[in-house]
Amino acid sequence: MSKADGGRFFEDFVAGQEIHHATPRTLTLGDVALYAALYGGRFALACSDEFARSLGFPCSPIDDLLVFHMIFGKSVPDISINAVANLGYAEGLFGVPVFPGDTLQVRSLVLGVKENSNHQTGVVCVRTVGTNQRGELALSYVRWVMVKKRDPSYAPPPVSTPVTENFIPPDRLTVPADLDFTSFDPALAGSRYYWQDYQPGERIDHVDGMTIEEADHMLATRLYQNNAKVHFNQHSEGQGRFGRRLVYGGHLISLVRALSFNGLGNAVKLLAINGGRHVAPSFAGDTIYGWTRVEAAWDIPGRSDIGALRLRSFAAKNQPCDEFPGDLDHHPSLVLDFDYTVLLPKRR
Amino acid sequence: MSKADGGRFFEDFVAGQEIHHATPRTLTLGDVALYAALYGGRFALACSDEFARSLGFPCSPIDDLLVFHMIFGKSVPDISINAVANLGYAEGLFGVPVFPGDTLQVRSLVLGVKENSNHQTGVVCVRTVGTNQRGELALSYVRWVMVKKRDPSYAPPPVSTPVTENFIPPDRLTVPADLDFTSFDPALAGSRYYWQDYQPGERIDHVDGMTIEEADHMLATRLYQNNAKVHFNQHSEGQGRFGRRLVYGGHLISLVRALSFNGLGNAVKLLAINGGRHVAPSFAGDTIYGWTRVEAAWDIPGRSDIGALRLRSFAAKNQPCDEFPGDLDHHPSLVLDFDYTVLLPKRR
Amino acid sequence: MSKADGGRFFEDFVAGQEIHHATPRTLTLGDVALYAALYGGRFALACSDEFARSLGFPCSPIDDLLVFHMIFGKSVPDISINAVANLGYAEGLFGVPVFPGDTLQVRSLVLGVKENSNHQTGVVCVRTVGTNQRGELALSYVRWVMVKKRDPSYAPPPVSTPVTENFIPPDRLTVPADLDFTSFDPALAGSRYYWQDYQPGERIDHVDGMTIEEADHMLATRLYQNNAKVHFNQHSEGQGRFGRRLVYGGHLISLVRALSFNGLGNAVKLLAINGGRHVAPSFAGDTIYGWTRVEAAWDIPGRSDIGALRLRSFAAKNQPCDEFPGDLDHHPSLVLDFDYTVLLPKRR
Repeated sequence: MSKADGGRFFEDFVAGQEIHHATPRTLTLGDVALYAALYGGRFALACSDEFARSLGFPCSPIDDLLVFHMIFGKSVPDISINAVANLGYAEGLFGVPVFPGDTLQVRSLVLGVKENSNHQTGVVCVRTVGTNQRGELALSYVRWVMVKKRDPSYAPPPVSTPVTENFIPPDRLTVPADLDFTSFDPALAGSRYYWQDYQPGERIDHVDGMTIEEADHMLATRLYQNNAKVHFNQHSEGQGRFGRRLVYGGHLISLVRALSFNGLGNAVKLLAINGGRHVAPSFAGDTIYGWTRVEAAWDIPGRSDIGALRLRSFAAKNQPCDEFPGDLDHHPSLVLDFDYTVLLPKRR
Repeated sequence: MSKADGGRFFEDFVAGQEIHHATPRTLTLGDVALYAALYGGRFALACSDEFARSLGFPCSPIDDLLVFHMIFGKSVPDISINAVANLGYAEGLFGVPVFPGDTLQVRSLVLGVKENSNHQTGVVCVRTVGTNQRGELALSYVRWVMVKKRDPSYAPPPVSTPVTENFIPPDRLTVPADLDFTSFDPALAGSRYYWQDYQPGERIDHVDGMTIEEADHMLATRLYQNNAKVHFNQHSEGQGRFGRRLVYGGHLISLVRALSFNGLGNAVKLLAINGGRHVAPSFAGDTIYGWTRVEAAWDIPGRSDIGALRLRSFAAKNQPCDEFPGDLDHHPSLVLDFDYTVLLPKRR
Repeated sequence: MSKADGGRFFEDFVAGQEIHHATPRTLTLGDVALYAALYGGRFALACSDEFARSLGFPCSPIDDLLVFHMIFGKSVPDISINAVANLGYAEGLFGVPVFPGDTLQVRSLVLGVKENSNHQTGVVCVRTVGTNQRGELALSYVRWVMVKKRDPSYAPPPVSTPVTENFIPPDRLTVPADLDFTSFDPALAGSRYYWQDYQPGERIDHVDGMTIEEADHMLATRLYQNNAKVHFNQHSEGQGRFGRRLVYGGHLISLVRALSFNGLGNAVKLLAINGGRHVAPSFAGDTIYGWTRVEAAWDIPGRSDIGALRLRSFAAKNQPCDEFPGDLDHHPSLVLDFDYTVLLPKRR
């Protein structure tokens, strides 16, 4: 009997179960630099301590999606090491900002399990929560993942299906207390567009494309300590479904977010991840393009300096987005459909 | 009308115009580590806080070429996103040293514009200036770039051609005030050669070669937030002039500087970039070799502990430099001709 | 006569000679993040300042193997730049922990030289010692390396062969003074196995495999400032023995250590490197698997909270380790045999 852990299978998950994930993680300026090099993002809040101070932060906070990846990564050994597919997200709410030196600790609550009709796999739904060293919420989100059964003949408990909201409404978003966009400098941020300039239904092609290398996505995924073998092992994956290593879906989210700077430069902070689907797999050699549709524009209660936009960003592979693939229905090049909420300065 | 920015074309530049670039950038120890991993440099000043303190610095300053790349990168979205080629540099003067935690802000002044005879492109000349959070000069340099015209029929204003100097003379170099090389330890620095040991006309083969990977040059170029699409998008570049992604020319400068440690180990600091030309493009898979010719040896006014060397370093691809390619005239393997000034300790 | 240094050949080494290596190196949080991204390690002590504090450290120490690589790298230009092969290690003893901000300085003492019977090469044995900025020992180890002769007709001095110990005995291991595992949290560390749960002879398959990319091993090896040309120059290596760049053997040690988290999650600190052999070369594209055999379990004199395990970890390429390749004798897939000592919490 080996001490190595083979990870949980479908039958190991029970609704109500709480799982404390190993490997607490201190986030540092080293992680920040690597994240910059992996995606090339240009949002000013994440790049400049001076800019961050002008908005009321003590220094640049850790990029919200880097926080997401770090928290996601910690959950992988316990939740999705035997996953077939990562199906989607909901109710992602960012809490207090995370700063270099903060340490994140992560736990997940099993919300529901549902066997698939093929009896080979099932869907597990968890809420994963990351907190800092003071126990404050950094991020909480729901994830659905399709997990293999250890034994196809196992008869699972009755289906428990959690109900989730389509999006986090504006009055439940967490705006950091000291944040003040009154002196937001759009020239430094790189965009002349304020919250008022975006209209629901508006579409923005982010123009540029970024080609993925094996080294890039593996460096990223190891940095997040996401150890799902499909991303790293060409020897086994070469004999698998795709014949290749699979790119971690979150890598696409960060790529599209970085590309979205062109058109959304003032959207310096994420407040929520309303939903997301990895529509199709990506591989090294794929070039990723992106576009965004504005879904809603919301006031933030009690604030005249900021407003929120609910956005839906789409990523397509090997397909420029000037024709907005996936806008009306599925498109063969589509790889990501990501629904999230961002903070922008309001024009006074 | 999309909010994404397509960047300036030739007709958008006017002599005298000042452009403030977005995305101020705090440089950190994370950037320093990545820069080390990308090039493998061994100059002691950049590697050891203790060594830096022995020369009067509070800690290791940010490598001068990393400062250059960061400042260059910020100018790309506004200056060269529609460039055909980056033609050359002049009058690059390093100011105060940049330390981890400093934030750079960048602006460019258009010095001149000149249409090319094909009416498809023109040359734009800018002075780009990077300053720290106290407004002190970190680096100022002139750059020529060939930019596409939006409309070939556009009739440009009269040619304005700036006059630049061939090199920064020794009395205009900026030597940090507290810098004192009296206790410079050549054994720690890795070279027994002082300023007096180098003679104008002397040539040094740096021996080693370094092969470029796609992931390497893209990590570097994203770190610098240089978003020129030719470096990143295989999907579009595969159909372009070269059929491949182009390596950012500055990547070659840093590669040759790192290789030049072998023969120039005591040249721990750059003072000026006198000029530079990217003679031919480089691609992933190329192996870069380098050699250097000593152009001049200068006293620094009022200083007996230090002297300056004007150097010209050449990079060749897939060609060892023991025969000094490019010494007399152009050589088919030549990719870089870089003219710069470095500081060395003087033997007492 | 060029100022570039071609490095020492066999005849340049004399028993008793002491060599001070150049380029002192300050280790930073940037190096730590890169190391994390290169290997994906999940040992809690290296990942979380909070966890480190719970064990009596002021913050996470630098990973022991990163310390090893940094010290090794500094010795390469002087010791092994003209090496044919890195033969093995012995008597590696870790001293005080290294923290971000510490600066390592490295020297080597030549212990012995022995010509090979082919008269083309010889074996050099050195003890390499890395100390911090206070002169405290960080790591000392013995290394054998096969080095080319400059002149095959050179008649070497009489053979001097040092005697080394097979392992560092428990009473000579250095346990940091303030270290206290009384409140070690195995759930955070990611393993339920204490020191008492491991038995000599026990074997652990670490299950996962990691494929090596050219960019990965070159980033790592440049970070360590190991400048041996076989790792970097495809132009010359393409015409060499293997037709390819060789992966730095130490890269494999770190890969297997990271994989060994699965089964050895509580083995948070290395105390000694008893020995090691790079059995066969590795190349980009290889997928590395690993397994470990427990060689001995030792009490630490005077300590009830901790115990030591002597481990032997094996790496195999393109070969899962569920059948423990190399256990009885040599196996064609074997690339590394690494003998080391780790610290674990004792169950009270």
